[in-house]
Amino acid sequence: MRLLPLCCALLGLGPVARSQPAPPPPAPDPAAATVNRFFTEALAHGQAQAQLRDLTRRYPGRLSGSPALAGAVGWSQQVLAGLGLDRVYTQDVSVRHWERGAPESVQLLAAAGAQPLAAAALGNSAATAPGGLTAGVIEVQSLAQVEQLGRAGIAGRIVFFNRPMNPAVARTPEAYSAAGDQRNRGPAVAAKYGAVAALTRSLTFARDDWPHTGNTAFLPAGPKIPAAALSLLAADRLARALAADPATRVSIQIHAQSYPDAPSHNVIGELRGTEFPDEIILVGGHLDSWDLTPGAHDDGAGVVQALEVLRLFRALGLRPRHTLRCVLFTNEENGLAGATRYATLARTAGGRHLFAVESDSGGFSPTGFNLGSTQGNAHERADRWRPLFEPWGLWHFARGTGGADVGPLLLQGVTVAGLTPDSQRYFDYHHAASDTLDQVNPRELHLGAAALAALIWLVDTQGL
Amino acid sequence: MRLLPLCCALLGLGPVARSQPAPPPPAPDPAAATVNRFFTEALAHGQAQAQLRDLTRRYPGRLSGSPALAGAVGWSQQVLAGLGLDRVYTQDVSVRHWERGAPESVQLLAAAGAQPLAAAALGNSAATAPGGLTAGVIEVQSLAQVEQLGRAGIAGRIVFFNRPMNPAVARTPEAYSAAGDQRNRGPAVAAKYGAVAALTRSLTFARDDWPHTGNTAFLPAGPKIPAAALSLLAADRLARALAADPATRVSIQIHAQSYPDAPSHNVIGELRGTEFPDEIILVGGHLDSWDLTPGAHDDGAGVVQALEVLRLFRALGLRPRHTLRCVLFTNEENGLAGATRYATLARTAGGRHLFAVESDSGGFSPTGFNLGSTQGNAHERADRWRPLFEPWGLWHFARGTGGADVGPLLLQGVTVAGLTPDSQRYFDYHHAASDTLDQVNPRELHLGAAALAALIWLVDTQGL
Repeated sequence: MRLLPLCCALLGLGPVARSQPAPPPPAPDPAAATVNRFFTEALAHGQAQAQLRDLTRRYPGRLSGSPALAGAVGWSQQVLAGLGLDRVYTQDVSVRHWERGAPESVQLLAAAGAQPLAAAALGNSAATAPGGLTAGVIEVQSLAQVEQLGRAGIAGRIVFFNRPMNPAVARTPEAYSAAGDQRNRGPAVAAKYGAVAALTRSLTFARDDWPHTGNTAFLPAGPKIPAAALSLLAADRLARALAADPATRVSIQIHAQSYPDAPSHNVIGELRGTEFPDEIILVGGHLDSWDLTPGAHDDGAGVVQALEVLRLFRALGLRPRHTLRCVLFTNEENGLAGATRYATLARTAGGRHLFAVESDSGGFSPTGFNLGSTQGNAHERADRWRPLFEPWGLWHFARGTGGADVGPLLLQGVTVAGLTPDSQRYFDYHHAASDTLDQVNPRELHLGAAALAALIWLVDTQGL
Repeated sequence: MRLLPLCCALLGLGPVARSQPAPPPPAPDPAAATVNRFFTEALAHGQAQAQLRDLTRRYPGRLSGSPALAGAVGWSQQVLAGLGLDRVYTQDVSVRHWERGAPESVQLLAAAGAQPLAAAALGNSAATAPGGLTAGVIEVQSLAQVEQLGRAGIAGRIVFFNRPMNPAVARTPEAYSAAGDQRNRGPAVAAKYGAVAALTRSLTFARDDWPHTGNTAFLPAGPKIPAAALSLLAADRLARALAADPATRVSIQIHAQSYPDAPSHNVIGELRGTEFPDEIILVGGHLDSWDLTPGAHDDGAGVVQALEVLRLFRALGLRPRHTLRCVLFTNEENGLAGATRYATLARTAGGRHLFAVESDSGGFSPTGFNLGSTQGNAHERADRWRPLFEPWGLWHFARGTGGADVGPLLLQGVTVAGLTPDSQRYFDYHHAASDTLDQVNPRELHLGAAALAALIWLVDTQGL
């Protein structure tokens, strides 16, 4: 790419064509000036990337129950205290406490010797016996296939869920959801039929050797078995080995352990509303991450964007009419205890939630928002603001459910939203050790923070 | 981020709400099915990323006159020959031949000793004398400032152009253009007043130590001086040193040399039109890159996307009504001789160009197109296709001039276009050694190729 000033000048095709008088532009929306200030301030002076560096370097692996999550709770209180807010406080939350323990090992036992397969135990996985386990493997593409195979085909074996995410969709979260049953419920179904362990293909499009963990659920009264995600390269290697020799065996060692619930905290900072202090606009992200990752996109990005929203209001000298509350939730990844606790307290506390928006889809270029409401089409009402956002690359207000952490508020009738960044790269890093700061572009991160702030300001001043 | 199936199901807020009958959807545009096939085929089976890996590994540094560019010419002929086209051929083009020679050296001479500054000679730079040069430095923010300082302030010194790109704009090419005069013409203006050399702040937002090269122009009869770009970290270091001690000196060694023009080639492949074989729809990118970089985004991405467009038509069994011509231009970076030659030959050859679209803004998620025409508002006419593209994330048809390689055709009255990908990261890698394959996401690259193919198919079947 190169500059084309000559060509543009010759043709008068630049943004300002001099050869013919332009029609008068439409009168600008008076709100545009403020919306633009949010974006230019964030792009020129945004602090989110610097804070994300600090958070991910000091507190990687912020899983519930970990010292890293406790450190991040303290860190975020300090950052909020430095923003000149009206109130900073925490809510006590009791969270699940599962630990991976010593590194897991998954090995393919081939004729040529044992080959390591890159793997990560799933959250909630059981441990193997101390010496590990070795068994034959049955590869399946669906949970229904396990049901069909039944105990005769499953018992005593390792079930290998290997259905890929569908690449042919535009929005990667759809592919993630469609393949997610394998990780979420596959091990439980395999256990029901006597499987000794489960392996799942990582929920990613990245053809590399990073395994992507995530939570798996077992029935309260059902058996728990060891379960791990394989990297895409490892999954393909195992599938090739099984195709060549269906009797191929795999050995697994997992040292995971569940502990009693641990104390944690939601961290909250507020700018009190000048006109409606009891009406709350919430912006949030979640402090916790998986244990094996710095959690830069998931959800360090959402945390620092929520903090940046407050900073932007302060930097622009804007006092919100309604109380602007930043909520950094705990335990989104394996329990949602933070969001559940927040919503429970909200029901009994004074004050009413007018709007709650979260960022938990990565720090990529923002393209729009999804909005959800039990009382009508919030996304259609928000659509009047599209002309204000389009100059900054955000072009759609879609119907949705906001996100996991604002979900409990939606169930209480609050209008919710979630930032929708470009989704193409999100699952390349999601729940993997590769979710690092260097995969976050500061401009993209700061555009997202500005978009959140601008939407909040519009809701605050114009209503939704 | 996590799945929210329960929450969605409870509220009936998913894409399929079961509790109330949905209104009948609007009748789909019959063209949508074919547009969607381009995207799903590219996402599921795209070859562009594999080809880009091959191109950038085998032929990095494809500058005009280099063996790497000659290799890329041969490589692309082979790829085209494998696509089952009606015709593959080349056009002879005489191109500028400038070489960097041995690695340049720029050193800050501080009291504590010499400190290396990461630098890259600009294309067209003169060499220093064999032993290098050492001089004082005058930092400026604009070309006008050099004119004001005049010979008294400039002669015998190194002029350091240090005006940053404006971070507060949404579209990074605008910031690039606004700061580009420093690199494009700064050294020539400095030379006019007797500067012994010029240093320019790299045209990037990336705060790292990669220098970003690019062409600089000297007046045909004017003096040529050594000129190099500094990385952002190096530029800031130099600025700090000058602030502390305006007498700070810098030594520069550049070994660049200009040679007589070299032979090169545009590479062309065609699918002949079934109804209008003499009417041409062109899709293009440029084969050459700067010498110090694999040129993955600039413009390996455009090359493999143009090749993928042909593959997509073949894979979908679609024969274009007009001749579909893939043109891989040579010498875009420092001369535009390939595009100029192509347009000159097009004027005298049989056939008429109906439309010419290029990709030369990186292999990032496509957001839309810019269109240019001397005969009206092509972008407004194309706007009727927005509903076909929005499901795939492309949402705007803007007024523009296509791009550098189709520019000469625009001057002949051809309607042109350029793919507009997300621009936030482009200048992080542009013209730098960091423009590597691992910065290209295959899904983003393939979405761009599909978008090009879909637009071409719409122009072919419906007219623009």
